[in-house]
Amino acid sequence: MRIAFLLYDNLTQLDLTGPAQVLSRMPGAKVDFVATSLAPVMSDCGLALVPTAALAGSGQYDLICVPGGYGCSAVMNDRVVLGWLRDQAPGATWITSVCTGSLILAAAGLLNGRRAGCHWAWGDYLPLFGAEYVAERTVFDGRFITAGGVTSGIDFAFRVVEHLHGPDVAATLRLALEYDPDHRPGGTPATARPEIVANVKAMTAQRLGHRDAEMRAAAARLMGEMP
Amino acid sequence: MRIAFLLYDNLTQLDLTGPAQVLSRMPGAKVDFVATSLAPVMSDCGLALVPTAALAGSGQYDLICVPGGYGCSAVMNDRVVLGWLRDQAPGATWITSVCTGSLILAAAGLLNGRRAGCHWAWGDYLPLFGAEYVAERTVFDGRFITAGGVTSGIDFAFRVVEHLHGPDVAATLRLALEYDPDHRPGGTPATARPEIVANVKAMTAQRLGHRDAEMRAAAARLMGEMP
Repeated sequence: MRIAFLLYDNLTQLDLTGPAQVLSRMPGAKVDFVATSLAPVMSDCGLALVPTAALAGSGQYDLICVPGGYGCSAVMNDRVVLGWLRDQAPGATWITSVCTGSLILAAAGLLNGRRAGCHWAWGDYLPLFGAEYVAERTVFDGRFITAGGVTSGIDFAFRVVEHLHGPDVAATLRLALEYDPDHRPGGTPATARPEIVANVKAMTAQRLGHRDAEMRAAAARLMGEMP
Repeated sequence: MRIAFLLYDNLTQLDLTGPAQVLSRMPGAKVDFVATSLAPVMSDCGLALVPTAALAGSGQYDLICVPGGYGCSAVMNDRVVLGWLRDQAPGATWITSVCTGSLILAAAGLLNGRRAGCHWAWGDYLPLFGAEYVAERTVFDGRFITAGGVTSGIDFAFRVVEHLHGPDVAATLRLALEYDPDHRPGGTPATARPEIVANVKAMTAQRLGHRDAEMRAAAARLMGEMP
């Protein structure tokens, strides 16, 4: 199974590295990290990641995974990347995303009429692209599997392994990766204290800056392209 | 707070990328990815990571974090890296590790007489270096904070944030990273089915190969150096 993770400037690296750790150990998986060029891509953590393949000439992938991050809004207006996703989509068995990566799929027109996950603080942008935001950690809609924010990518990946290879393979990987996470409330708005939710919403709004307009422009372009 | 994550060939990247995602968002944190040179370092997932600083001339760090991986056994015999860790230790406020990274700290002689975490399938090597393996996800022993295997790094990082900045900052980061992991049994040997435990143990033993002898050689060297 040929798997492609999309790399782009200012991605939230755990959106990608979490599922990559799990899916790279899936039987038969061959993973590529694809970007518009082969130059190292800077993530949000000061850690640069090296692509293994360029979009151009990459060949058809079986599973595409688009991570999220504040850099997503620029990608949502990148015709080269959106075009690549549209070209890949018909032949891919699975089209997936983590966090705000679903907004990139949406901007490519791939989630129109579909239910999708997203980072909880960004989910309201999905309807601009004809998609419905679902506040679940992993959302399945046909060939589309879209995860919630950041750390959701790890759970999403285990769900994919279970779906493709069954519960025993997934259980083996969970044990190999010692996946027995601490249980604390507050990981979603539903269980977090209201002041913490307000704090994160405010931080997000402040960091969004020009990106709000960028995403709305992407939506306007997509809607304008529709027959 | 100057934080250094050690990069080395064939590290298990989630050991590092998980805590890096959390700690890089800690107030006042300045994170470096250090290696023996500035060349990209290949992880276990086909994803190469770019260092931001070389060991030589790196300056003193406040928190050191050593990830694990099958590449750890070579590092356990690398006098340059072990020497750097020994030089950093006296001036570092916190010396930490994820997964088999504790074996690297142990090989540097830093865990002699201490309790430490490790990947559950490798913990038996700790006593060779005078350390006691503790089957917990995050182990505190004085200035040493050592985590269990792979995904433990994320929980470890949230514990560090809570310890340094209090529960509200940790809660804010948990929500921002949507950390509400799925709850499934089987992430540790204690809760996994016996046949799954046997499977992972067999896979690990097969992959260990020459590394068992490498780690025993590191222990012999350390014990030989002790007065």
